[in-house]
Amino acid sequence: MQPNEYALIVAGGSGSRMQSSIPKQFIEVGNKPILMHTIEAFYQFNPAITIILVLPISDQQYWIELCNKYNFNVQHIIKNGGKTRFESVKNGLKEIEDENGIVAIHDGVRPLISQDVIKNSFESAYKKGNAIAAVPLKDSIRELENNASKAVDRSKYMLIQTPQTFMVKTIKEAYNTIDSGFTDDASVAENAGIKVHLIEGDYKNIKITTKEDLLIAEAFIRLKK
Amino acid sequence: MQPNEYALIVAGGSGSRMQSSIPKQFIEVGNKPILMHTIEAFYQFNPAITIILVLPISDQQYWIELCNKYNFNVQHIIKNGGKTRFESVKNGLKEIEDENGIVAIHDGVRPLISQDVIKNSFESAYKKGNAIAAVPLKDSIRELENNASKAVDRSKYMLIQTPQTFMVKTIKEAYNTIDSGFTDDASVAENAGIKVHLIEGDYKNIKITTKEDLLIAEAFIRLKK
Repeated sequence: MQPNEYALIVAGGSGSRMQSSIPKQFIEVGNKPILMHTIEAFYQFNPAITIILVLPISDQQYWIELCNKYNFNVQHIIKNGGKTRFESVKNGLKEIEDENGIVAIHDGVRPLISQDVIKNSFESAYKKGNAIAAVPLKDSIRELENNASKAVDRSKYMLIQTPQTFMVKTIKEAYNTIDSGFTDDASVAENAGIKVHLIEGDYKNIKITTKEDLLIAEAFIRLKK
Repeated sequence: MQPNEYALIVAGGSGSRMQSSIPKQFIEVGNKPILMHTIEAFYQFNPAITIILVLPISDQQYWIELCNKYNFNVQHIIKNGGKTRFESVKNGLKEIEDENGIVAIHDGVRPLISQDVIKNSFESAYKKGNAIAAVPLKDSIRELENNASKAVDRSKYMLIQTPQTFMVKTIKEAYNTIDSGFTDDASVAENAGIKVHLIEGDYKNIKITTKEDLLIAEAFIRLKK
């Protein structure tokens, strides 16, 4: 029997880098808030998936008003965000009691996640225990050291995206073992002794953090239609 | 006396990653070919700048036809491209006899270069000998090793862009000393014993290499108008 699928969507960010008064996940692109695109992507992949949305308490009332305003009726469970991403994910994971399930942990502000990447995330995590979406670097990189920098071989590095998908039991244990402020789930897992498994992400799967990113997202969403 | 300024624009790429029959630098965005935006940015910064365009011989006739078609009359010198970026830059540098000048080496497919970054490139290179545009990583990265990967601290790495700007004498010597296929000028300089100096680039200053990049560039160019 295939395990149950869960999507844990983390939407704790504020609008500070965007110079926007509303948190960035609520900004409208392609005629609806970013977060609705993100949730819909997982629902479209599997209408029976359990979607858990982690939101700061202070944003929950506004989110519910938005759902009414946009007639957004994809079912999802709302959980309280913590002070850090780490706490938010940990809170969200508490909602999942089904330890044989698979959970895709995904940034709320990555609305352009493709069906292919979601599918591959669940399939690979089922086979290998976890699946972390990643893409090769397109630019050269340099490593900073002291007051200088040195060239490094970019082909040895991968940019990490989300979803980061795990067997529920494994990632819950990792979050209960590690006590820290890691900013991605792969690092939490790794520090709990789990071997991390990368899968192919997608350059379009951008994390919207700046005004420029909003423009890019608009362009990509327009293309999808 | 301020040194003379040169822009060496490298446009040797083919359209292979774009699945396009014409080389990507000739693709139209915002109503004219990418390369025309790039050249205009340097001309706008300093109308007295000497612009050297390095193009494969096989593309030169087509480029001249495009210049006529679009009434593009920003003066520039065309030099033959080589088999690699390294050879192309070396060929372009041979055109500059003024060893006291400053040269900004720039990718032809980065049309969104801002006036601020160009200005800072020349000013910083004048003060410190060179100036390499770079931006912090926005995503987490992992380093590949053997058949696995490990988390690394992204704050220790910078993504490298162009322009990469140097005193003419220095970079000519570096290109004459080093014999290799480095893909960026900072690495050539570094291997010739020069300390590389990073300056702040710009996330909008993307290198157009895929169809998605074209869309992003369209969105940014529309915004500038």
